[in-house]
Amino acid sequence: MDDINTYIRTAAQNAKAAYFALAAASSAAKNQALLYMADGLLQNQAALLAANAEDMAAARSKGLDSALLDRLQITEKTIAAMAEGLRQIVALPDPVGEMDEFRTQPSGIQVGKMRVPLGVVGIIYESRPNVTIDAAALCLKSGNACLLRGGSEAIRSNRAIASVIDAALRTAGLPEHAVHLIEHTDRAGVGAMLQLPEYIDVIIPRGGKSLVARISAEARVPVIKHLDGICHVYLDQDADAQMALAIALNAKTSRYGTCNTMETLLVHADRAAELLPRLQAAYAEKGVELRGCGQVQAILGDTVLPASAEDWDTEYLAPILAIKIVADINEAIAHINRHGSHHTDSIVTQNYARTQQFLRQVDSASVMVNASTRFADGFEYGLGAEIGISTDKIHVRGPVGLHGLTSQKWVVLGQGEIRG
Amino acid sequence: MDDINTYIRTAAQNAKAAYFALAAASSAAKNQALLYMADGLLQNQAALLAANAEDMAAARSKGLDSALLDRLQITEKTIAAMAEGLRQIVALPDPVGEMDEFRTQPSGIQVGKMRVPLGVVGIIYESRPNVTIDAAALCLKSGNACLLRGGSEAIRSNRAIASVIDAALRTAGLPEHAVHLIEHTDRAGVGAMLQLPEYIDVIIPRGGKSLVARISAEARVPVIKHLDGICHVYLDQDADAQMALAIALNAKTSRYGTCNTMETLLVHADRAAELLPRLQAAYAEKGVELRGCGQVQAILGDTVLPASAEDWDTEYLAPILAIKIVADINEAIAHINRHGSHHTDSIVTQNYARTQQFLRQVDSASVMVNASTRFADGFEYGLGAEIGISTDKIHVRGPVGLHGLTSQKWVVLGQGEIRG
Repeated sequence: MDDINTYIRTAAQNAKAAYFALAAASSAAKNQALLYMADGLLQNQAALLAANAEDMAAARSKGLDSALLDRLQITEKTIAAMAEGLRQIVALPDPVGEMDEFRTQPSGIQVGKMRVPLGVVGIIYESRPNVTIDAAALCLKSGNACLLRGGSEAIRSNRAIASVIDAALRTAGLPEHAVHLIEHTDRAGVGAMLQLPEYIDVIIPRGGKSLVARISAEARVPVIKHLDGICHVYLDQDADAQMALAIALNAKTSRYGTCNTMETLLVHADRAAELLPRLQAAYAEKGVELRGCGQVQAILGDTVLPASAEDWDTEYLAPILAIKIVADINEAIAHINRHGSHHTDSIVTQNYARTQQFLRQVDSASVMVNASTRFADGFEYGLGAEIGISTDKIHVRGPVGLHGLTSQKWVVLGQGEIRG
Repeated sequence: MDDINTYIRTAAQNAKAAYFALAAASSAAKNQALLYMADGLLQNQAALLAANAEDMAAARSKGLDSALLDRLQITEKTIAAMAEGLRQIVALPDPVGEMDEFRTQPSGIQVGKMRVPLGVVGIIYESRPNVTIDAAALCLKSGNACLLRGGSEAIRSNRAIASVIDAALRTAGLPEHAVHLIEHTDRAGVGAMLQLPEYIDVIIPRGGKSLVARISAEARVPVIKHLDGICHVYLDQDADAQMALAIALNAKTSRYGTCNTMETLLVHADRAAELLPRLQAAYAEKGVELRGCGQVQAILGDTVLPASAEDWDTEYLAPILAIKIVADINEAIAHINRHGSHHTDSIVTQNYARTQQFLRQVDSASVMVNASTRFADGFEYGLGAEIGISTDKIHVRGPVGLHGLTSQKWVVLGQGEIRG
């Protein structure tokens, strides 16, 4: 226990020192390091695949499930994708040093803001080696040092990737502790990271809900997170029928396991008899199980299972959909704010006033008009890449890209002003 | 204990419900409520002064010190200032609903951001009745419900102010629980507020360092805070002498007890022999005690006390100044980042490259060139008012005004787009 605490504390202290050095690094040096990483991944492909094969063999012998094995595996194709992802991050503008909002105040001073890194970012994630390279790249580009604590099943793959990162940092003349892979995968190490607010500026946990909940309950370091994605689509009385059907189908069925997938469909009472049978047919074709309120069952009959109180609060991550008929937009908004997870919710309507009401009153990280909830994603929003999604309100909401990894400090430019 | 927990939980639940109602309120209604508050303070002046007189009498009989009595007291003049402050907040633009950064993405969706309230803000502060009205006004204007937990010595004054606020909310048709004064001043109530992240979105503690440190150590709710203000002025080798003297004097002596007062002066070695004797004379005239490093003593003699290691980490809040001679800007920046409190630091120089280095590398909420640290303040920065100052990096840094009490959510405007 003492050993792991000392190891984590030393790693965090080194990362903080590296962050100060990184704050002085040029965009060119950071981009050069990212390009060296891309080259390094391709040049060391054989070593990466060999390390990953060992991880895969160990995971298989432990009987891990196929979804986990799928995320753990790296192939020539995923290595090429990692390298391409790095080149895309190189192409993004460097957010560090952006200055704006300068205004001259009555005293004569000019006051504005400069965008700056957060400092040291701790990322706690599952056994997904691609996250190691993505997180390192986003943190480096945004001037943050990072501590990467990946799942134990991926340790050999992560070590191989980390050695590519280390070499790239060294060649680019950047501090070697700017990216630190936590090699102790003992669970106590996670606990130690959460207790170091003097060295770690923010923790980003990625993974199952119980892990994220535990981390945010215990952490003394600020946490950027989402627990789950209970996303809604509300079909308003003034929805275009074709659009309503297309969005409701896409939001549920384009992928089942993602956090921006719709889990509950809300339908205005005046349109239920028209829309629900057509939706039922479309969902049936995709094999989606429907669970409805009493009014839904009255229209669709008992092929639809009854929705229990628990259904409205459930993220299925599966081909299951809860459907509720609501009297009006007020009931829809109240339902979403009470049962949703403040992730992403969409209204389908042609009524202007209700779009405005929905956008203002739905208390979620992403609110949409006439679009599928599946668009809630850093790439689709034009961020270039994302390190996670936040359903918190503090600091950053929704997809977190380079800007979410930065803060703004105040800059005052004077000519000798003193305060009266 | 159970009683107070239940009381706080109920208050927080009511505040959350009020926040949802407030999210639908117009700017006009919020401004009207603020104007009713201003009128109400003036109309109820006699009652406010009477309640405050009781608080003052009780505080005097408990033997509280004069600084505390000074902050507790309200007069006709302070009531007029509170009313004027409310009118100034009315005049500020409403941040809620501001939309910007809309860009059309390749999929066709338009993605931008809308500024929205945080939700429920808990403010924990000392016995300063003016904070009750300021905090209520800033939260209301920014669409947040608030829980106000003021010091116990001010409870009668706060109750009188709260009844003015309640009447104003009622008359304006806004939810009565939008502003809730916590009337139980039992300390356990503070503890209870810290444990309710499901209802309280952020806590802003204002007060002594030990209170703020305890709150941020215990809180499961995000906290916006500063612990102390160890601010620096660095006189560079290329400083204008007159400017250097004026800023160094103003930053220390314009007020001693404020968090933006300079506590340590750093002087480039090449300018020390020229500047220090003149500074010593100016500080002596103001009665400021100097504590210097060995090099400072070598120049100024033993009228300057030796600075101990502890001095570099001390916020004096008093007419005492630590002075250190540094070899160059790198030593100055390293000293500030190590010993400062990340609050406000200023460089005095005419050298362009070193202004840029200082602005980028000093890791503080406010970084200044050729201006007194005393400008770090919401009014001087043009925010109109401030609810506090943050030395954290997450969410908001430096003076916190209306924008600091808001977040941004993503808005997606589509025409039926679905994800491929």
